[in-house]
Amino acid sequence: MAITIKEVAARAGVSTATVSRVINNKGYLSREAVDRVKQAMRDLNYVPNTAARSLQGKDSMTIGVVLPSLDNPLYSELFEAIESKLSTAHYQTLLCTSSNLPDKEEEYFSLLRANRVEGIITSSHGDFLKRKANENYPIVCFDRNISTKIPSVQSDNLSGGRKVADWTVSRGAKRVLILSGSTEDLYPIDDRIKGMMSVFNRADIELETAALEFDSSTSVKALLIQKLIASRDYDAVCCTDDLTALMLKRVADAMDYHPLVTGYDGSDFIRTFFPDLTTVCQPIPQMAELMCNLLIEKIHNRSYQFESEYNFPVKLVHE
Amino acid sequence: MAITIKEVAARAGVSTATVSRVINNKGYLSREAVDRVKQAMRDLNYVPNTAARSLQGKDSMTIGVVLPSLDNPLYSELFEAIESKLSTAHYQTLLCTSSNLPDKEEEYFSLLRANRVEGIITSSHGDFLKRKANENYPIVCFDRNISTKIPSVQSDNLSGGRKVADWTVSRGAKRVLILSGSTEDLYPIDDRIKGMMSVFNRADIELETAALEFDSSTSVKALLIQKLIASRDYDAVCCTDDLTALMLKRVADAMDYHPLVTGYDGSDFIRTFFPDLTTVCQPIPQMAELMCNLLIEKIHNRSYQFESEYNFPVKLVHE
Repeated sequence: MAITIKEVAARAGVSTATVSRVINNKGYLSREAVDRVKQAMRDLNYVPNTAARSLQGKDSMTIGVVLPSLDNPLYSELFEAIESKLSTAHYQTLLCTSSNLPDKEEEYFSLLRANRVEGIITSSHGDFLKRKANENYPIVCFDRNISTKIPSVQSDNLSGGRKVADWTVSRGAKRVLILSGSTEDLYPIDDRIKGMMSVFNRADIELETAALEFDSSTSVKALLIQKLIASRDYDAVCCTDDLTALMLKRVADAMDYHPLVTGYDGSDFIRTFFPDLTTVCQPIPQMAELMCNLLIEKIHNRSYQFESEYNFPVKLVHE
Repeated sequence: MAITIKEVAARAGVSTATVSRVINNKGYLSREAVDRVKQAMRDLNYVPNTAARSLQGKDSMTIGVVLPSLDNPLYSELFEAIESKLSTAHYQTLLCTSSNLPDKEEEYFSLLRANRVEGIITSSHGDFLKRKANENYPIVCFDRNISTKIPSVQSDNLSGGRKVADWTVSRGAKRVLILSGSTEDLYPIDDRIKGMMSVFNRADIELETAALEFDSSTSVKALLIQKLIASRDYDAVCCTDDLTALMLKRVADAMDYHPLVTGYDGSDFIRTFFPDLTTVCQPIPQMAELMCNLLIEKIHNRSYQFESEYNFPVKLVHE
């Protein structure tokens, strides 16, 4: 339970009005009263925003975020952008990671709600979200079409896939491998692949597809990739995320084999440290900002009607 | 407030003993009773671990983690290792990031404690931690010597600095720049630099030092680095973290200038995708495990006496 200003007032031996004046820095107060209130706030680990709002109603001024993992810089950057945006709106943010396990995601949802977060931003795949969709509790998804009642904020994955394929064709590729970072047929990967295929099929490209287990270790992934490209059959490999593309590049380089390689996501980190990688760049800060705005809107107005999808344009970055 | 099994029992219209039998899957129960309890658990977003423990005492089975940011893969990997270890010990983990702002760190500490986390793992620098040290609340620091009452789990930064310098000298460097990723004179960077200097001074190396602002943007850092190395005076640049080293390499490469470069941290991510970088490798999973074990020990036994420092050996990785 959050500490209230009543408890602070009791501990400091002053009225709640005095505590409120100290918090808001308004009205005349003796130096001694200010000191006592501040000491009481420290003693009780009192957080002004949270507690002031808690006294007025039931708002905890806290938002939860549930992500599969932080392995991909896309997710760390997305979280940092969310935290920063929510912070300017006076919300605090709690992050949980689920190792992509639906049971864990559901447990973290329960924990966050038990801790009275006012809404949750997530990229969970779990079926439990479908049940939650009818509760009208504020949830915004990143890149997940779970239900028409939970909005998905995402970039235009179909168009991103097409852009990658157009570039690959324009560079003269004839035999292409589409390499997916996950064996599961999940959104948004499937849309990226659909976009790529629509172009490759029209351009009469010889096409193969393969997928890596999402949770394999780096060395297992490297071995799988090595097998996949052992024949050196492809003149381009289009990957559904940047980390898979970088891994592919590394393995191929070691074989002195240099197909065209494309990634997907285009986080700041990847673009800074791998400026040579051709990739589709998602507008992470803008998507984070929209997710925060939608969630706050819904928190303040439970009858707020979301669109079911919010699509951001993407851009291809290449040398 | 966490939901208790009393509330689940009330909603299901059964006794708490029945709820407990459903949770623990023990004793005879009618199918109908099991269904009603499970439905009530779903309705109330009840988490068995948390709530069962809550009824017995005041345990929330939740741990908080406060980190400066997730920009450096060292921190994402550390958090993932902590979450995974705590998960096997039936704890849930909440992460907050502070953008390295002491006020924000303190606010997140208050939020986590208001949410009854049983202990906190942090790499905060904030002075407020010194005040907290006397509260005997379970806190474990990563890489921060705040107080003898709060243990710091860390790798041997002095030795790491010496290893980097030994390698640099062995490769024939005569003029060396030590480049710090932060302008503040903070632990652990200062120990790394001390370790480097002890070797360089003995080896009669011509030495200069410089530092970047921790929170500058990538492009500002790149410009600063460009100025620093414009004269091409150094035959080696030893950096206090891997990201600074990678940035330096990128800027120098663009100038067609190729000094020896060393980093520090050696996260899995960096070693996978930049296998050429000479760096000091911290044992992240082992440090995470010890932090979790120490914290759990302290939670169960408030009179548990920590050491003030736990140092892990490091290894230099180079081509």
